[in-house]
Amino acid sequence: MTQLPPELVREALKRNKVKIENYKGIEYLRFMDDFKDVPRGTALFKSFTLWGYPHIGRIFQLSTGLKEQFTHPFFVEEKVDGYNTRIFLHEDQILALSRGGYVCPFTTERVEDFINLKFFEDHPNLVLCAEVAGPENPYVDEHPPYIKDDIQFFVFDIMEKDSQRFLPYREKEKLIEKYGLPSVERYGLFSVEDVDKLKRLMKRLNEEGREGVVMKEDSERDKRVKYVTLYSSLKDIEITSVNLLGLPPDYFTNRLLRLALFMEEEGIEADQELFLKVGKAFLEGLLKAIEMSKKDGRVYRTFRCRFKTRENALLFIESIKHASSQVQVLQRRLEKEGDYWVLEFDRVYLNMAGLLGHLLAGGSIFD
Amino acid sequence: MTQLPPELVREALKRNKVKIENYKGIEYLRFMDDFKDVPRGTALFKSFTLWGYPHIGRIFQLSTGLKEQFTHPFFVEEKVDGYNTRIFLHEDQILALSRGGYVCPFTTERVEDFINLKFFEDHPNLVLCAEVAGPENPYVDEHPPYIKDDIQFFVFDIMEKDSQRFLPYREKEKLIEKYGLPSVERYGLFSVEDVDKLKRLMKRLNEEGREGVVMKEDSERDKRVKYVTLYSSLKDIEITSVNLLGLPPDYFTNRLLRLALFMEEEGIEADQELFLKVGKAFLEGLLKAIEMSKKDGRVYRTFRCRFKTRENALLFIESIKHASSQVQVLQRRLEKEGDYWVLEFDRVYLNMAGLLGHLLAGGSIFD
Repeated sequence: MTQLPPELVREALKRNKVKIENYKGIEYLRFMDDFKDVPRGTALFKSFTLWGYPHIGRIFQLSTGLKEQFTHPFFVEEKVDGYNTRIFLHEDQILALSRGGYVCPFTTERVEDFINLKFFEDHPNLVLCAEVAGPENPYVDEHPPYIKDDIQFFVFDIMEKDSQRFLPYREKEKLIEKYGLPSVERYGLFSVEDVDKLKRLMKRLNEEGREGVVMKEDSERDKRVKYVTLYSSLKDIEITSVNLLGLPPDYFTNRLLRLALFMEEEGIEADQELFLKVGKAFLEGLLKAIEMSKKDGRVYRTFRCRFKTRENALLFIESIKHASSQVQVLQRRLEKEGDYWVLEFDRVYLNMAGLLGHLLAGGSIFD
Repeated sequence: MTQLPPELVREALKRNKVKIENYKGIEYLRFMDDFKDVPRGTALFKSFTLWGYPHIGRIFQLSTGLKEQFTHPFFVEEKVDGYNTRIFLHEDQILALSRGGYVCPFTTERVEDFINLKFFEDHPNLVLCAEVAGPENPYVDEHPPYIKDDIQFFVFDIMEKDSQRFLPYREKEKLIEKYGLPSVERYGLFSVEDVDKLKRLMKRLNEEGREGVVMKEDSERDKRVKYVTLYSSLKDIEITSVNLLGLPPDYFTNRLLRLALFMEEEGIEADQELFLKVGKAFLEGLLKAIEMSKKDGRVYRTFRCRFKTRENALLFIESIKHASSQVQVLQRRLEKEGDYWVLEFDRVYLNMAGLLGHLLAGGSIFD
């Protein structure tokens, strides 16, 4: 399916699966959820559609997983811990969509700092799929340890407008090279026999504090699978335990499972040090949340990111204010620092603060 | 409400909230879920009704909780870690119900070993609410450390047939004394000012590896609240992490929250030793489940309990076979040892084994 049938769009609108958005006068439709065969994040502009970035299955074991998942050799790339964006040309402007299909004022503004725009001049019909990561990104609490400040872009796929398919891997590589695009690290072609080689790679990525890999089959079907490090699972718990009660209930058990199966696979001993790290990851965030809740009745994390214009900063903060009913966005400061407007804001975890406040005040629950 | 209106029972039957059960020829109705104002576990016999044991709210902090919950002094009792039963006279037989309202062949058979039956001769209309605990109980993986073998009964409430109310606390104490009934430890009457005294008690119970306390207001409304130790929350995680994926999703986050708020309340430092214990509690069970799954494709726990007759053992194991679609019950052995028939059986956690099996075989999931 390349073009969306109008009756499907009408039905999605009627069922509130699609929202009409407006970015600086550009109207578009955004699929807020998966709907029939249309993935969440699919965005309809006047003259073209950008398909949502597809879900990628996760394996928890390499030794059995490669054989089970792949019938051909596959390319291995770093999975960077950031947020997913799709960058494209709309009339004479470059825009960047969030995973949810929202034109992101922050990402859009920063594209030119990292991406050679000649790419879009030459290929107006192509879409760059990239991860944006770094300590000053406004969406994700974590970032790879090798990014010391601000953000970076990492291209990992190229797709066409009006198409759900990605360019073949080697074509993508050629374009990345030709335009000097920043890319995720690419580790080359592996076969399903290369379990040990891939385990060694994962061991190294784990030691370096990286998230993991995405594997992409070198075949017509372009099958993809992801696999992450113990470090990443542990970090997820550590970062999010401050919002322990606000996350999807299986968030933590899923990470523990990833972690345990990674250990099993890599022959990592369940030693005191690891137990300590896991316990600490859970408890420190939770204790911090309790402390916050006692001190000022709020549980939050502070984000910081930089903008070129004050207007974009304000547009951005407005845009994320209604993203979740469980998370309140509060601006802390917006000030010029050197060439940039630095925005600091809190994401306040309302569920967490609500329940903690109730319990700290001596309330009871029936559990 | 003391008598159940027949139309309510008919509606509950129609909606599958009530099941018809049969224990050795005695027919009765059992509420499998809370339905309107009728609690789960309510059981209707031919000539009387046994109300389900009510839910008790839990507080997570003493210092604020006592003032918030109680308007009068309250009695404090040990909360024993076992399963809840209601014992009563049916015609000329003593029967014991599970919390779910099922006549339990195991509990029923053992009542006479622990309870002075003269109590029921003198008071045929009264119902003993007791906790059954010990290493050889067939329901709960945990038990208080001071019970070294078999099981024990601990009476904590007395109610009347056809009534939702409990006997006043002092009447209960008199009957316990008069008939020498085994009882939960009773720590006497506390006021809402006695926070420090209660904290000291909790500290001791925590050190002794006990579960916690139930507090019962000395007033007409008989308000009840429970509060548990850090030990108990940690033990819950430790025991159940082998079935990490089969439990209600908020099971673990709830325990972590109890644990963290207990620490905060009692001024327990978040030290290395505690982090280590928490990490170990999560990981050891999970790693054991992975090992089991790899070795024989099943994840299970083994239970052991003793019966006086082979017939009751078989009746018991039949009765628990259909208790859950996610837990399979497999008999391991049933043999005479001394005066008892010893039954060993496994509870096989199907969800856990299913998902682990899928992942260990290299399957992927979209999470």
